[in-house]
Parts: sequence; structure tokens; C-alpha cells
Amino acid sequence: MSNDVRPESLERITTPEAARSFIDDQVKEIKEQVKDGKVLLALSGGVDSSVCAALISRAIGKNLTCVHVNHGLLRKGEPEQVCKVFGEQFDVNLVYVDAVDRFLDALAGVSDPETKRKIIGSIFIDVFAEEAAKIEGVSFLGQGTIYPDILESKDGIKAHHNVGGLPEEVKLELVEPLKLLFKDEVRVVGAALGLPDEMVNRQPFPGPGLGVRCTGAITRDRLEALRESDAILREEFKNAGLDKKVWQYFTVVPDMKATGVKDGKRAFEWVCIIRAVNTKDAMSATIERVDWELLEKISYRITHEVKGINRCLYDLTAKPTGTIELE
Amino acid sequence: MSNDVRPESLERITTPEAARSFIDDQVKEIKEQVKDGKVLLALSGGVDSSVCAALISRAIGKNLTCVHVNHGLLRKGEPEQVCKVFGEQFDVNLVYVDAVDRFLDALAGVSDPETKRKIIGSIFIDVFAEEAAKIEGVSFLGQGTIYPDILESKDGIKAHHNVGGLPEEVKLELVEPLKLLFKDEVRVVGAALGLPDEMVNRQPFPGPGLGVRCTGAITRDRLEALRESDAILREEFKNAGLDKKVWQYFTVVPDMKATGVKDGKRAFEWVCIIRAVNTKDAMSATIERVDWELLEKISYRITHEVKGINRCLYDLTAKPTGTIELE
Repeated sequence: MSNDVRPESLERITTPEAARSFIDDQVKEIKEQVKDGKVLLALSGGVDSSVCAALISRAIGKNLTCVHVNHGLLRKGEPEQVCKVFGEQFDVNLVYVDAVDRFLDALAGVSDPETKRKIIGSIFIDVFAEEAAKIEGVSFLGQGTIYPDILESKDGIKAHHNVGGLPEEVKLELVEPLKLLFKDEVRVVGAALGLPDEMVNRQPFPGPGLGVRCTGAITRDRLEALRESDAILREEFKNAGLDKKVWQYFTVVPDMKATGVKDGKRAFEWVCIIRAVNTKDAMSATIERVDWELLEKISYRITHEVKGINRCLYDLTAKPTGTIELE
Repeated sequence: MSNDVRPESLERITTPEAARSFIDDQVKEIKEQVKDGKVLLALSGGVDSSVCAALISRAIGKNLTCVHVNHGLLRKGEPEQVCKVFGEQFDVNLVYVDAVDRFLDALAGVSDPETKRKIIGSIFIDVFAEEAAKIEGVSFLGQGTIYPDILESKDGIKAHHNVGGLPEEVKLELVEPLKLLFKDEVRVVGAALGLPDEMVNRQPFPGPGLGVRCTGAITRDRLEALRESDAILREEFKNAGLDKKVWQYFTVVPDMKATGVKDGKRAFEWVCIIRAVNTKDAMSATIERVDWELLEKISYRITHEVKGINRCLYDLTAKPTGTIELE
């Protein structure tokens, strides 16, 4: 906690060797800090929390308890993957919390994007704090904080992400083994720890998950259409090699219907928006000029395979005047 | 009126010579039918009604009265063009009716596309009938019916368009000089009559106009944003030569806002959808694969020049599962 400045002498971790050396150092440090204490960690399944969990697990094994909160806003297959990797491959105590109804009930009828984000964040902290209270003798909180989080927090751009908002009464000492690393280094470390490629090289995903991409007031059927369309986009981008090239890509299913034709009959269904952007610093972004044949194939699949969708649109907007997400 | 079947001997009008010969024949026929009677015509500014008006005007001059109803749902510059061409270039009596408030007031709060279309059609007939009642001694109704209208009407696909729904008490004899022509022939005839190129080669435009493209309940500010974005798209497509290539292209501004950034600040504004499709028979359609550089330029212009819009999307949907319009 004392040293939040990356020393200039610290070489960028780009090789498996450097990653292994970093891991060895951190395992030692975590053991020294935690001793035989218990660590709690909120495991979203994103890159940072997954690598952090794998690293702490390497150091203290069963003394790490990971809590995976399924808020119903994860991508297709994500909760299952988290359970498989951390419940089977790694030797951690994994608590899986199905909080889908709790989140979706609280979000029903709420259409303002900022309010939605606040509700999701607030319930997340509640659920996590409740789980924390059930586990005895925990005195440490593992967090996948990375160096850009520290920098942005210092600049006042944003508050620490993750569970920085835990209530006062939960007094836990932080364990943040990745806090001096950049994102690309975290991925190299994750690979060296044996995490699966698709978990380590996952594109950025907002904390409130699909909640911000199901614009307007979220409904369960539209959320499901969003999850299915997103899965098709990811599959097609992966097959075309675009998953390695495009910085962030996703679908959005807004609360908007349009007239179309299905099975020779009039169909009044939702539109699906595809967004794929590239950026260096997330402050500005350009759109990916996707091959037309691929775009039309994805549009065809989504409008034919996803229940309730009859239109596909491609977002042409750079940032500015757009944002990277569309909410 | 007696003969609604195009004789096989009738050669396709493809040259100015053929058009002039057709015009001479029709001028004679109209004079014989109408004599010194008065003809009334609803002039929308679309290809069919404009060519019909120019042709009848050639035959009977001031005995033709054209009524142009501005329902507030026309494209940018259209009412002005109609007034200029028919008020100055052609020697007709032109009645311009500003019914913008009447239409928009009736449409306020109505979001169902079919209901919107019905309201627009019904008020249009009311306004036209009121104007007809003001003009004394009218016994003929000019209509820009063309051959596909006759065929579709026979097949029961759709009712005669134009003002086929005039009330019973307005008993007028029809004058339909274009009723045996196909669309491409109408354009050749229009050019031979001296109508401006952009009027004669206008792309298809739905009767309810921008009303169907301002999806959801129409508001005046969003309708204005739609009109401006449509003007930018048309200008850019014309400059790129796409106006001659693409069958139909337009923008849609649905009742949907998204978060964006303008002047360094958060902006919660409308999205604009661009649609450009090609079709042979209007039963199925494919999208135009527009050059990316042009699409991004149009997106940039619309998001920077049109008040209230911060996003641009491109419609990827073929028909089916889409329709040609997006409503």
C-alpha cells in the first residue's frame, strides 16, 4: 500500500520469463503480507480480477475465497467459464452468487443510463458485503487494481474501480499484486499463470456489463436478445481474426422496434446495433471498417437466429461525438 | 378512362423524340376530354404528380389549378421548389396550402406507424377536399396514376395512391394522362416537358413523407433534425454520383437518445440512421456497400452540423427481414 509509484527501474513485462519472475516475487510478498490470514476477492471474470485471483491463489491456496456475483448482465458463457476455471483448474474457495433476479428487479423500469449504473454498482456492493459477512476470519481484500487505475485515481478522473466502495464496517487490508502493472503486462502474467487465452485476452467490458448495452429500461427478453447477438458477433469476429485486431466490439439492443418482414408476414421487432472501435488511450476512438461481406453475414445471422430482432445497424460514430460504449 | 390496358403495340418511351410524340398525342386527348373545363390536381412534388401537372398545363394552361399541400413532412427545399417550378416556370394556377400545424398537431403523441400513416392520409384528403370546394366550376381531377398503380390495383395489392379517397360528394372526372406509362417513361416525358432534372429523377418518396422516418411520436425538433440530416445525405450521395446508382436512400431519426461527447461535455442526443438500398421489384432489396470514407464523412457532417444528433448508424438489413423504409 505504501508504494503506489512504479519505479523507473521496473522493466516492462513482455516475456513469459519476466512474468514468471514477477509471479515468484509477488507470491513471496503476498505470503509475507497475508501469512495464514484469509483473503476475499470479487471475481468478475474480467482480465484484472481473474489474473489477481490466480496469482493470490498461487500464493495462499485455499485461504483465498473468490465471490463471483452473477448479476444477469454477463456475456453468454461467462459465469460458466469462471466456475470452470476457478472451481476446477485453480484451488480456490469459489462462492457463486446468483443475484440475477435481485439486479433485474431493481432495474425494472429504469431508463436513465447514469441511474442504471448507480443501481448496479450499489447492489453489487450490497451483495458482496453480505457474502463477506458470511465468511469468518477474513482480514484481507484482494483487488485487481492495475497501474492506470492508480494514475486515473490520482488525476481525479475516476474513483478506484472494483469494490472500492465497500462499507466502512468491513475493515479489510488490501492485497493488490497488480497495482504497478499496465494492462498488457497483466495479460502476459495471466498467460504465465495458466489462465485460458480467451480469459486473458478478453476485450474491455464495463462493470455494469450488458446493462449499459440494453439501453432504456432493461427487460429480460431484450437482455436475452442482446446476449445472443453479442455471442454471434464475438464468434464471427473471432473466426475472421478481428478479435485480435479490434480494441472493443459489442452489440446494443435499444428499446426501439421497427417494421420488418419475417416468414412473409409483418414483424415489429427490435433493432440491434453493432459497434466496433479502435483506440489508443480511450480518450478518442475511430470505427473499424469491417469487410462488408462479413458485416452482412453477421447481420443475416443476428436477424435470423436471434428471437425478436429483425434489423441490424452499424455504428459509424467516432469518439467524439460518440462514446466508446453506446448507452 | 375506358382503356386501362397498355396495348402491346405501344413502344417503350426511351427517347426525347418518342416523349415529344407522346406529349403531342396527350395534349390533343386532354383538350378533347376537358374542352374549356377546369382541372384540379394535388401536386406533391413527386415525379408522377409533377409530370402530370406539367403535361395538363401544356394542354389547358390556366384552366389547371394545382394544390400543393405542405404537411410539414416534405424534404428540405421541396415546397420551395414546387412553388418555383409551377408558380414561375409553368403557367398554372398554384394554390399553396400551409397545413404544417394541422398535420403535426394531429400527429402529436402518436407512435404506431400504421396509425400515423392513416392520420396523414386522412387529413390530406380533408385539406384537399376543402381546397377543391373553394374553387368554382371544377369538373375534372388530374391524377399522376402510372401503369404499375393500375396493375397493383387490379391485383388487389394496394389501392390507387394519390387522392383516390376523395369524398363521394366531390364528383370529378379523372384525367390520367400517364396511366399507361412505366416510371422510367414518366421520367423521359418529364424531361421533355422541361421539368428540372432533380425533380424528374427524384428517388421514390413515401406519401406520408418524413413522417414515417421520424419513428415513434413525431416532435418538431426531431423532425427538423431528420430533414437536415436527410439533406446532408442527399448532397453527399449526389456529389459521389450515388444518386444515380442507389435506388432509395434516406435518413431516419428514431425516438432514441444515446450518450455522447460534444465540446468536451456529455451530450445525450438522438441517433440518426442512414439507409441506402437497391431493388428491382421492391419485393426484396439489398443494401448498398457505400465507400467507408464517404460514410464516415457523412457521419461526421451529420453529428457536427445537425442540432441534437450525436450518433450515426448504417442500416445493414436486407429485405427481408427489413423493409425498404425503416419505420
